[in-house]
Amino acid sequence: MAENHPRCKIGPSILNADLSSLREACEKMMSSGADYLHLDVMDGHFVPNLTFGHPLVKCLRPKIPDAFFDMHMMVSKPEEWVEPMADAGADQYTFHIEATDNPTELSRKIRDAGMKVGIGIKPGTPVETVIPYADAADMILVMTVEPGFGGQKFMADMMSKVKLLRQTFPEMDIEVDGGVGPATIEQCAEAGANMIVSGSAVVNASDPKAVIAQMRAAVVKELGN
Amino acid sequence: MAENHPRCKIGPSILNADLSSLREACEKMMSSGADYLHLDVMDGHFVPNLTFGHPLVKCLRPKIPDAFFDMHMMVSKPEEWVEPMADAGADQYTFHIEATDNPTELSRKIRDAGMKVGIGIKPGTPVETVIPYADAADMILVMTVEPGFGGQKFMADMMSKVKLLRQTFPEMDIEVDGGVGPATIEQCAEAGANMIVSGSAVVNASDPKAVIAQMRAAVVKELGN
Repeated sequence: MAENHPRCKIGPSILNADLSSLREACEKMMSSGADYLHLDVMDGHFVPNLTFGHPLVKCLRPKIPDAFFDMHMMVSKPEEWVEPMADAGADQYTFHIEATDNPTELSRKIRDAGMKVGIGIKPGTPVETVIPYADAADMILVMTVEPGFGGQKFMADMMSKVKLLRQTFPEMDIEVDGGVGPATIEQCAEAGANMIVSGSAVVNASDPKAVIAQMRAAVVKELGN
Repeated sequence: MAENHPRCKIGPSILNADLSSLREACEKMMSSGADYLHLDVMDGHFVPNLTFGHPLVKCLRPKIPDAFFDMHMMVSKPEEWVEPMADAGADQYTFHIEATDNPTELSRKIRDAGMKVGIGIKPGTPVETVIPYADAADMILVMTVEPGFGGQKFMADMMSKVKLLRQTFPEMDIEVDGGVGPATIEQCAEAGANMIVSGSAVVNASDPKAVIAQMRAAVVKELGN
């Protein structure tokens, strides 16, 4: 692969963790070898679930000062939370292309606020939809389940999207999210994903460290780093 | 007052607490003498803030098994979260009358799900709006700030709403929420409120127990219980 090939990063999703003690759940993931945290914001409008927003992230930030916070914004008005999330200490703002009329302007706004830009696509959204906006982004997220809930079954047919994105953008961060764990990581790695979100498979594991290490090994084997 | 006069109950709002360790924040409030917990759910649509939803409440419930959870649903589709909140272990579901076309049907749905019914009105909503639905409710909430954020200034002119409600419904629970603390509790008590939500004034106090006791004394003095 190219010299600037993207690095493997494993980012646990804390959606199925104990949300009443989120600090502890996040600390446990970081000490288990996580490279970043994937934080699922849902507003009950873009998806039929309501998780948490920037006030919680703002409380969490000083407790987990060194973790990269990838905010997965499953909200119907992503423009509205850019400033509050930047103020809360988010590192990356990943919005859904289905939720905005102007991905270019939103990406600029996110970057101006000092955060990295992620763009996500739902399973029903063709990968071609996101390609024109990839230059403005740091990361493309390919959902491998319908967004809204943890613990769903991995959709293997989404791997063609990951493959096309990797071929088109060899140096870009490409993230997969939904049903990813030891049983499905090889498909993700072979397709070219380098940012791996894993929820239940890590959070509910008796040995999260081992699960993270196993997934990392599968990705590194493909990426060569 | 009548024999069946409502009892004084102090319910801290944890909106301004450490949301990354909500279990601890709630335990502290209960051990400081709180009678119930007022939990602020915001969806970023009914109000310009996004706090948390039923997944967090479901995690919190087994940790704080004995507390009465009054869910303040600042959401634009209150019908949608009745079942999830009942499943999460909520005790009371307080919706905003401004957010529904059918308060009677929604109240019935909440009761059928096994929860008590609260109906809230924003500062701009006339008290007359809620009166026709009071028979279907266990509690009326009079907002004393615009809902959305903690730490706002108490609106004393809302006390006329509380007075009219207390005169009309001598036995009903009447709750006030927003800017309520030691400096404003007497106005609330004199007007006839018996359920007292207090956020910053309790959560940020060096001695929350003393603040709760002080507010309780002011209300009990008026209620006689």
